[in-house]
Amino acid sequence: MRGVVMHAPGDVRVVEREDPTIVEPTDAIVRVAAACICGSDLWSYRGANDVHDAVMGHEYVGVVEEVGSAVATVAVGDFVVGSFIASDNTCPVCRSGYQSYCVHRTLMGSMGTQAQRTRVPLADGTLVATPGMPDPDLVPSLLAVSDVLGTGWFGAVAAGAGPGRTVAVVGDGAVGLCGVLAARQLGAERVVVSSRHPDRQALARDFGATDIVTERGDAGVAKVREATDGLGAHGVIEAVGTQEAMMQAIGSARPGGHVGFVGLSHGVAIPGAELFGAGIHLHGGMAPVRRFLPELVRLVWDRAIDPGKVFDLTLPLDEAAEGYRAMHERRAIKVLLTV
Amino acid sequence: MRGVVMHAPGDVRVVEREDPTIVEPTDAIVRVAAACICGSDLWSYRGANDVHDAVMGHEYVGVVEEVGSAVATVAVGDFVVGSFIASDNTCPVCRSGYQSYCVHRTLMGSMGTQAQRTRVPLADGTLVATPGMPDPDLVPSLLAVSDVLGTGWFGAVAAGAGPGRTVAVVGDGAVGLCGVLAARQLGAERVVVSSRHPDRQALARDFGATDIVTERGDAGVAKVREATDGLGAHGVIEAVGTQEAMMQAIGSARPGGHVGFVGLSHGVAIPGAELFGAGIHLHGGMAPVRRFLPELVRLVWDRAIDPGKVFDLTLPLDEAAEGYRAMHERRAIKVLLTV
Repeated sequence: MRGVVMHAPGDVRVVEREDPTIVEPTDAIVRVAAACICGSDLWSYRGANDVHDAVMGHEYVGVVEEVGSAVATVAVGDFVVGSFIASDNTCPVCRSGYQSYCVHRTLMGSMGTQAQRTRVPLADGTLVATPGMPDPDLVPSLLAVSDVLGTGWFGAVAAGAGPGRTVAVVGDGAVGLCGVLAARQLGAERVVVSSRHPDRQALARDFGATDIVTERGDAGVAKVREATDGLGAHGVIEAVGTQEAMMQAIGSARPGGHVGFVGLSHGVAIPGAELFGAGIHLHGGMAPVRRFLPELVRLVWDRAIDPGKVFDLTLPLDEAAEGYRAMHERRAIKVLLTV
Repeated sequence: MRGVVMHAPGDVRVVEREDPTIVEPTDAIVRVAAACICGSDLWSYRGANDVHDAVMGHEYVGVVEEVGSAVATVAVGDFVVGSFIASDNTCPVCRSGYQSYCVHRTLMGSMGTQAQRTRVPLADGTLVATPGMPDPDLVPSLLAVSDVLGTGWFGAVAAGAGPGRTVAVVGDGAVGLCGVLAARQLGAERVVVSSRHPDRQALARDFGATDIVTERGDAGVAKVREATDGLGAHGVIEAVGTQEAMMQAIGSARPGGHVGFVGLSHGVAIPGAELFGAGIHLHGGMAPVRRFLPELVRLVWDRAIDPGKVFDLTLPLDEAAEGYRAMHERRAIKVLLTV
């Protein structure tokens, strides 16, 4: 089969890879209908991680082609959406809602879903089947559920988004934008998003943002405080992963408020004294997308939400290298790869 | 009046200070019955903070001697317990339960309650009167409510202590020990405390600890994991404030678990990548003691709890310097000063 590998930072190739096979009786093989490039893939692309001939991709939707003997909840022919982390959904950590930290988890990035097929370990605990074959226009939104929407949703939940709340969003990438959508869906009254890019500002508004702030860092904090009687937001979603973004998020929340951080952390060190002084709740990490998957698939299926709008460039799998370039150069928010 | 000042690190003196007077109509003047020395005072004593002729003390119980014209809920002659931070208890931050971050707060340390009298700003929002004059043996426990119990209680709440939960406590000082008491009162099934000191271990057991761990750092983490099927504790109270303690706390919590940090943070930097990888909730800071004050005063008054046991040395105010030395040299857990 064809699949993406990153030969080295900045060097993305589509090569012939071996077809996946059932290894464990809990596995499924999914014929990928659509995959995508993640903001986190760019860290490797830009050389922040050591990478050599690595298979790429952890987001996917598609049709089940084969299941192991122990798989009970999805069947051959089902259209499925899966989390970017495979989980058994039965261990104590899963049962508490943290499937992304399942004691038996497998990161789907190790499977490399930017490919024609993928093995999905722990299929029952990882995949959710749609009620039927989706209309083609639903595929991008279903794909978004797999990571960016699920992650933005987790950020909004961790930020305590709810009725009467003001939520600030730091980061206008696909996850931040999905965080805007999630915060509004969860009932937030005001959503203040940091963005300097007119196209992203427009999508943020479309997803329900009520205020746009172009300032960053301390100036961004000041704007959020200005908008909240000097108190700070009830909740903040940090969807970048840098020191500046984290400190902006912590500074933007009122005492007792909540910061949900979902930006993959790179080089961040949080000063304990500032955190102590802020009096906020800080929660984040790898989003337990599986917790939200049934609900989010239903919202997309019912056309209540349209998170697929974050895909502003669609390319065939074979042109993945151009997709990486477009995201790296910020010509695209997020790239969908058709398979 | 007589009162404690720290002339310089390590140099504590009891000197003549001016008697406090009503400044604002919301003030009360309290004749201090008992005050105490806080672990946080030791940071200054040991030279971690620049200090010169500073008034000392922020914990206090006593009798109201005078009230401003706007004070409505406490009266002259009332025996009162107050938070270590004065708050109006009416601003949006107070109403959300974060009185220690009140928009009008005053740190009682700036008043210096290790003295015969103290001014208490925002008396209605800061003080709680006991149902009557307490029996003398209740005074230490009422004093403990003012900070160490209130702070340990907040730590336990932030750690999500509750029925069926396992809570680990990092730190065997007065706050950590009160955290043990609080976690058990809140229903925790198991409380695992880190302690190497036989006297503190004994008090921890007395307060309800079920397990004692003598290891620190990674070895301490390993012990907690061993005791929790490899998962980590549901909640952890960090009651030290050092890098090692914070990392031990984060490492001891299971994914989705809660770390409540109440140790005054000194030189701590939390690596974002480790926090992201841990998937825990992190919440702490200055404890909103006023939130818990009515309930905790009631528990002490009803003799349901006896947090005053943390005071293992009682000295007259004039011997405060010896009290500081005893705590600095770890000859005492916590020193009560009779006034």
